[in-house]
Amino acid sequence: MAKPILTLTTDFGLTDHFVGVMKGVILSICPQARIVDISHEVAPFAIAEGAYLIAQAYPYFPKNTVHIVVVDPGVGTARRPILVEAAGQYFVAPDNGVLEMIYSREKHLVRAITDHRIFLQPVSQTFHGRDIFAPAAAHVAAGTTPAKMGKKIMDYARSPLATPRPAGRNRWCGCVLHIDRFGNLVTNLQASDFPESRRFVIKIDGKRVTTRTKTYAEGRRRELFVITGSTGYLEISVNQGSAAELVGSQPGSSVEITLK
Amino acid sequence: MAKPILTLTTDFGLTDHFVGVMKGVILSICPQARIVDISHEVAPFAIAEGAYLIAQAYPYFPKNTVHIVVVDPGVGTARRPILVEAAGQYFVAPDNGVLEMIYSREKHLVRAITDHRIFLQPVSQTFHGRDIFAPAAAHVAAGTTPAKMGKKIMDYARSPLATPRPAGRNRWCGCVLHIDRFGNLVTNLQASDFPESRRFVIKIDGKRVTTRTKTYAEGRRRELFVITGSTGYLEISVNQGSAAELVGSQPGSSVEITLK
Amino acid sequence: MAKPILTLTTDFGLTDHFVGVMKGVILSICPQARIVDISHEVAPFAIAEGAYLIAQAYPYFPKNTVHIVVVDPGVGTARRPILVEAAGQYFVAPDNGVLEMIYSREKHLVRAITDHRIFLQPVSQTFHGRDIFAPAAAHVAAGTTPAKMGKKIMDYARSPLATPRPAGRNRWCGCVLHIDRFGNLVTNLQASDFPESRRFVIKIDGKRVTTRTKTYAEGRRRELFVITGSTGYLEISVNQGSAAELVGSQPGSSVEITLK
Repeated sequence: MAKPILTLTTDFGLTDHFVGVMKGVILSICPQARIVDISHEVAPFAIAEGAYLIAQAYPYFPKNTVHIVVVDPGVGTARRPILVEAAGQYFVAPDNGVLEMIYSREKHLVRAITDHRIFLQPVSQTFHGRDIFAPAAAHVAAGTTPAKMGKKIMDYARSPLATPRPAGRNRWCGCVLHIDRFGNLVTNLQASDFPESRRFVIKIDGKRVTTRTKTYAEGRRRELFVITGSTGYLEISVNQGSAAELVGSQPGSSVEITLK
Repeated sequence: MAKPILTLTTDFGLTDHFVGVMKGVILSICPQARIVDISHEVAPFAIAEGAYLIAQAYPYFPKNTVHIVVVDPGVGTARRPILVEAAGQYFVAPDNGVLEMIYSREKHLVRAITDHRIFLQPVSQTFHGRDIFAPAAAHVAAGTTPAKMGKKIMDYARSPLATPRPAGRNRWCGCVLHIDRFGNLVTNLQASDFPESRRFVIKIDGKRVTTRTKTYAEGRRRELFVITGSTGYLEISVNQGSAAELVGSQPGSSVEITLK
Repeated sequence: MAKPILTLTTDFGLTDHFVGVMKGVILSICPQARIVDISHEVAPFAIAEGAYLIAQAYPYFPKNTVHIVVVDPGVGTARRPILVEAAGQYFVAPDNGVLEMIYSREKHLVRAITDHRIFLQPVSQTFHGRDIFAPAAAHVAAGTTPAKMGKKIMDYARSPLATPRPAGRNRWCGCVLHIDRFGNLVTNLQASDFPESRRFVIKIDGKRVTTRTKTYAEGRRRELFVITGSTGYLEISVNQGSAAELVGSQPGSSVEITLK
């Protein structure tokens, strides 16, 4: 039988002991766990960025993988820890909308985790990654039935995603969802909605982009182009350079596309 | 039987091949090892920071875990490699005080590792993480009896910890032990020594802090407060902001607390 | 039987989901794989840096390890994915010279990976780490015969290494291969070619270095010295400081050595 896989997506960074401690807790409860880091470099408190990253990652993991997602400015407050079943996998997170992109794509069942017996005692007010999320996820990975963790809830937190809105004939307003390591600007425009054959103008932070390429290498040096990203979204890119630097955009920056 | 767990705490960073190579060495000797990174972002040569991080992490690992701690400005000199047994776990490190916080908390037995047959040959003068610490730890994880690695020693290096000192009636002087990823200032004041009900003034780098909260989220924007950290120390924090930036403190900065 | 080991060396960084996704793909195909990160902080598109890092790492891994190396500015173009057998291990990479230091040291056999059935479908034009390299490597780790992946090729890309050249009597011109985390300048001068007993002068970026030490700790504060690095190359270093900062060198900077 395959060993349980747990993934970690947090804003804890890699300098402190936080992530290592969560792994110690997981392995103490579920010694056979395979642990995979998605990212610990989510910007502090950036729920939307955490939501984006886990949504790009989970489709590539096997059935029954348990994903822990901790971006949690409300740690210690009344916000609930939740266990979500979706896409044949499990997600353990604070109930603050960090799983919104999963909710929007997949049939899902959300439980409030209320079985305090599985928490590390005493539960701190500042590090629920260690005291609540890691042990809860490890118990799921070790085979605890989700129903034992807590009851199904309907009033879990939603944080509606920014989706492109029509802005006139053949025109849509979207935004930058994410800026990746290479400075590519990942927009929230679905590539499949914009056929490659169609001429277009994209306006972003005072720049105009009218070229679409199939590969990064086709782009001319220092020239912006649009490409179908590996996430399925349109990306604004530069060949071997950073579009983000060239354009000066931020996550959330407006992107306007007009089809010709 | 549970597979052996090894952890790594170093100042090697994640850009070079150093950490990957240590893992290759470990898996060559102990193929069933589970390897967990605590941190590789200890500032170069910062023994006190390494000491802090491993001390926060080890309590969350199972019995028999082998912790490798390499912050080693004296690599290649006469300073000894040591194997420490404490808290039912093992610690492999240079004898330079990086395990001081373990010594101060736990009954411990220290051995000088002298069995050169387990070292990678030839032993370099600059990378004992690869040539000495990784193979020694892997042999311990694989079941080699500690007594075979070397003799017990009593004259291992101590580097007394900065502990708070009384500074008048109801007043103590402590310091900043660590600044975490979020900019929280972790002091060396034990939260349990300062009851939450008691009024107080903390002075740090020209700022006064008089508020104590239970959670980060209770704090007002840009207002410093004190909180019981997940380490058990008092932390000076800001809600969704960096106390370190606001105050301008460094590890080692003085913190004075007066109880009212 | 020992579990298969896969290593990852990329320029993907640790902030995005890229590395986590590759691991999800690997574990979906080869659930028993042990995955080790060498580095994901290769500078974007820096093929020479990737080449250097994997070359320092592979000798420390067991037979049959599968190394994935993805620094790939040509992703999506006609450049081929390759599978290389060398030193009893496997290397999966784009055919762009990133394995040059392996070719220069080891007998090797290079195959173009052409069996599209093992790729993730649809293959994106921008993330072959996920769609081609991870699945190909995982299939090798899981036991697929290399010959099934594709045919042997002879015209794989070479990118001749910068080797030191003679520049007069007892004088050689080399360069800085790599600057490590500590600011040590790793040159391409083989330590074994320059006996420790021999007096010398090294000139680099307007500085002269005439001291050689056995350990970092022997160096005087803020004084440059030469040391035999753990890679076997001469390094220019400073005790507990950064030679790179002191000298202002970059990878590729010229280094001239004259033996006295």
